Amino acid sequence: MSESTGTPTGLIVLGQNNYGKSEIRVFKVNRDTDWHEVWDLDVRVSLEGDFEAAHVAGDNSQLLATDTMRNTVYALAKDHLTGSIEDFGLALVDHFLEAGPTVERVRTEITQFVWNRIEVDGQPHEHSFVRGRGERHAKVLGDESGARRVEAGIGDVYVLKTTNSGWEGFLREQFTTLPDTDDRILATIVTAKWEYSTTEADFDRLWNGVMQETLKTFTDHYSPSVQNTLYRMGTAVLEAFPEIERIWYSFPNVHHIPYDLARFGIENNGEIFHATQDPYGQIEGWVERRA
Amino acid sequence: MSESTGTPTGLIVLGQNNYGKSEIRVFKVNRDTDWHEVWDLDVRVSLEGDFEAAHVAGDNSQLLATDTMRNTVYALAKDHLTGSIEDFGLALVDHFLEAGPTVERVRTEITQFVWNRIEVDGQPHEHSFVRGRGERHAKVLGDESGARRVEAGIGDVYVLKTTNSGWEGFLREQFTTLPDTDDRILATIVTAKWEYSTTEADFDRLWNGVMQETLKTFTDHYSPSVQNTLYRMGTAVLEAFPEIERIWYSFPNVHHIPYDLARFGIENNGEIFHATQDPYGQIEGWVERRA
Amino acid sequence: MSESTGTPTGLIVLGQNNYGKSEIRVFKVNRDTDWHEVWDLDVRVSLEGDFEAAHVAGDNSQLLATDTMRNTVYALAKDHLTGSIEDFGLALVDHFLEAGPTVERVRTEITQFVWNRIEVDGQPHEHSFVRGRGERHAKVLGDESGARRVEAGIGDVYVLKTTNSGWEGFLREQFTTLPDTDDRILATIVTAKWEYSTTEADFDRLWNGVMQETLKTFTDHYSPSVQNTLYRMGTAVLEAFPEIERIWYSFPNVHHIPYDLARFGIENNGEIFHATQDPYGQIEGWVERRA
Amino acid sequence: MSESTGTPTGLIVLGQNNYGKSEIRVFKVNRDTDWHEVWDLDVRVSLEGDFEAAHVAGDNSQLLATDTMRNTVYALAKDHLTGSIEDFGLALVDHFLEAGPTVERVRTEITQFVWNRIEVDGQPHEHSFVRGRGERHAKVLGDESGARRVEAGIGDVYVLKTTNSGWEGFLREQFTTLPDTDDRILATIVTAKWEYSTTEADFDRLWNGVMQETLKTFTDHYSPSVQNTLYRMGTAVLEAFPEIERIWYSFPNVHHIPYDLARFGIENNGEIFHATQDPYGQIEGWVERRA
Repeated sequence: MSESTGTPTGLIVLGQNNYGKSEIRVFKVNRDTDWHEVWDLDVRVSLEGDFEAAHVAGDNSQLLATDTMRNTVYALAKDHLTGSIEDFGLALVDHFLEAGPTVERVRTEITQFVWNRIEVDGQPHEHSFVRGRGERHAKVLGDESGARRVEAGIGDVYVLKTTNSGWEGFLREQFTTLPDTDDRILATIVTAKWEYSTTEADFDRLWNGVMQETLKTFTDHYSPSVQNTLYRMGTAVLEAFPEIERIWYSFPNVHHIPYDLARFGIENNGEIFHATQDPYGQIEGWVERRA
Repeated sequence: MSESTGTPTGLIVLGQNNYGKSEIRVFKVNRDTDWHEVWDLDVRVSLEGDFEAAHVAGDNSQLLATDTMRNTVYALAKDHLTGSIEDFGLALVDHFLEAGPTVERVRTEITQFVWNRIEVDGQPHEHSFVRGRGERHAKVLGDESGARRVEAGIGDVYVLKTTNSGWEGFLREQFTTLPDTDDRILATIVTAKWEYSTTEADFDRLWNGVMQETLKTFTDHYSPSVQNTLYRMGTAVLEAFPEIERIWYSFPNVHHIPYDLARFGIENNGEIFHATQDPYGQIEGWVERRA
Repeated sequence: MSESTGTPTGLIVLGQNNYGKSEIRVFKVNRDTDWHEVWDLDVRVSLEGDFEAAHVAGDNSQLLATDTMRNTVYALAKDHLTGSIEDFGLALVDHFLEAGPTVERVRTEITQFVWNRIEVDGQPHEHSFVRGRGERHAKVLGDESGARRVEAGIGDVYVLKTTNSGWEGFLREQFTTLPDTDDRILATIVTAKWEYSTTEADFDRLWNGVMQETLKTFTDHYSPSVQNTLYRMGTAVLEAFPEIERIWYSFPNVHHIPYDLARFGIENNGEIFHATQDPYGQIEGWVERRA
Repeated sequence: MSESTGTPTGLIVLGQNNYGKSEIRVFKVNRDTDWHEVWDLDVRVSLEGDFEAAHVAGDNSQLLATDTMRNTVYALAKDHLTGSIEDFGLALVDHFLEAGPTVERVRTEITQFVWNRIEVDGQPHEHSFVRGRGERHAKVLGDESGARRVEAGIGDVYVLKTTNSGWEGFLREQFTTLPDTDDRILATIVTAKWEYSTTEADFDRLWNGVMQETLKTFTDHYSPSVQNTLYRMGTAVLEAFPEIERIWYSFPNVHHIPYDLARFGIENNGEIFHATQDPYGQIEGWVERRA
């Protein structure tokens, strides 16, 4: 660690740091047959290690350029992007731990965009696609000791139910004005992440399974709070998939406010709402296995 | 019209003008049965007419407040938002032509967001939904004379084909460096709008039909240019739907650039691409019936 | 014009169309002295003309590639981007009218981002800059006949006044609930565009002048409505600059709603507001010289 | 902690969790004199504690509604938003630790938007403002024990220098293609955060000082890498302000790529660049005092 020139405020040193490349937009087509398959990814690579010479002395000789990281991701996609993005992330981590002489830890974060086949006369087309909503996420972390951790996630899945949800019996105090309700619209944009206990699994099957359990649980109960629905979802996922150690959800509560039509002599019996954009509740939490 | 104080530059007057309310986010649930139906809309209302007193003299007495417009949209949704957004737009236009004493022309623009039912064990759920990608648009214009025009549109539908597209034989001059190709990725985000020759039609069926013809045409030919595919799509739509007078498409050409892997001794035979965000081609045009 | 295969719905033909390149992000540095000057532009080029062969027959031989347009913009920046973006736009229009054999009309739209010099110890730095908010726009249109039209504009200038603005005496009817006020916050994000009567002018001086008149007028009167303030601004600009034929403003009314604190026994005398994001009023209009 | 129904995969329990309200858009005007002062804030409140009853049993009785949090922020703004946002954050933390019976920890995050006075004839106006670019951030954390931590930050400050920056001597290996350069454009959007060793300080003075040191350091040296410039900035800040324990910067490297004009016989001597949007380098790190 370097030392500053001795001010009375003590020594000043470099702390935790990392660098890498973001928004590497790799698109791959598997054209082995006429039934093309595609991967559309946004990759971020981030390296940690001993980069003090660059920071303190301006010595770049041990630094892998971020431009090199970009080249590498495209080059490795050729042979290693053949299945799940989790497996591709593992290959990238292995490579970058070797590539930088002072690299100690590597993190890759991958977002996969969803492309569905266009259907023509009820048949899915062999090489034409339409983008769906929602994102699949993977994060792989690794270090020199050989340790690896695989996380997966869901982003931008917007769900809504028009009934079977309420919010009542909550704490009332000086600034509380919201009335109780046992029938409201529940709407949220699902962000989820979870940790695997293994680096060898059928990550495609598992990701689809978590998505399915999350959506199914959203529909299958009266929701007394976002918190309770979050806990039910997490429990359903952990019960279904022993490979998952713990799961976290983040739920904005996208408020749909009944519009006051009584002022105009019109009854509004849970029909007409304002879908407001601001502000929103935010509920977040982990559901996990007890050690 | 008002006159300015007589500068040598001539009289200064108010020209074309309009005002209204944007981003009115109406959400409606039809709960007549347990099989709920939803409408999720972003409505914009815009009025034209004789508003010179407000502009020039600060006299608001003939102005409908934009806050009133908002209230009105929610109130009218109760009885008039029961089918297509085009029909709702027509009802709004009729109302606002009456509501403002000096209103001469009304324009409503409605974006409808797509909500698909969540499937549980293969069955669509009765009141739980997941947002899809893509937008449905409607624009209705009307004036005091009773004239009405209905337009519809598509937004944010991102399509891609991995082959059966090229770009060759184009003009070569001093600043041309792009090589010819007869096999490239074609990717674009569809924006379309079209004009109906009628105000009474099954607008839901027609909108779905235009979407279907657009997607089908995207898949069914070798595309020598975005221009040619645009023309084919427009022709297919006009041949299928006599109610449509003309149709316009706007296509960003989202470039997928083959990544140069030969530098690393790796063959890239149409497999690895960079999905660049900047800059992009933009191709726009009308296909119409000859008068 | 091509003819369709003879459906009962009549002949189907290509209508108005154009194509070009968007988001060409040119950055130029003038390094003639140590006092560097920079231009940071987003350029859009769009061509109109006889492109029917490409659309109908898939014949690209008369088409300038959009990739060529991109190269051209960078190449011409070397010698022609030396002053105002309006002058650069004029040079681009001249070039593209020549470059494409069937081009009849050219439109260039340029956004210039604002970079201010970083001040160090009160002195502006010679080559270090910080981005400001706000955009400068220019649009140049030209055709084969030699006609040219120059427009300029302002974007993303967010202004607010905390008093000297009201909204009262407006029309009251069945859906009106908003109370009158003679003291409110007025906030809007200025978008403006104006047309010049000439192609030879000191466009930098004029643009700064319009910005100055717009801001000054915003401050100098009690605003009874956005409409009245719009008209005053346009009048001030046209009186100051005879080179400007007409000017258009578009003003979202960014509502700042007094928060109801009386429920908690707290007085709110025009102090505490909710800056809502949805929905918003939209007021637009031209102020022009009488012919 | 609750227990699941005894699957072979072990007990499933609630883990770390929190909830709150986001995007509370408080706008305050101090109108004590004609020289109005404004605060424009985006506030996020987040609570941690024992919320298991809500998650597991659907019992909301100990939960403060997020709507109540919103009301509270507006109500407390009246008396407590009179100086720095750090001081307002401290007041909010104190309040919410009391308000929720099972709340154990509170986090408030505040973004303040910059409003500058409009200048008319060289004089700053007393109640008219124009939004600047850049954000001021504050984060305050507190717990039941009385512990408090104050952090501050900078967001969205985009800086650029046209020379006195290079990138050379970096590691070269199989995927490295980037050439060395000793003269490039350095452009980045500053995100910074830092931790104070005290809760009682002149936070306005300190924030402005960090901004000033950051900008000044950006200009005052040849930058051999973003890493080195980051370290120099952090050192300058810590040397200037003993109240700051450590500081973190996150710098996207917004690449400005020299455009290849030699293909057209045009010399490009560091003048014409493409300001690309994708992908970008990302350099992050802490500079801190040695314990």
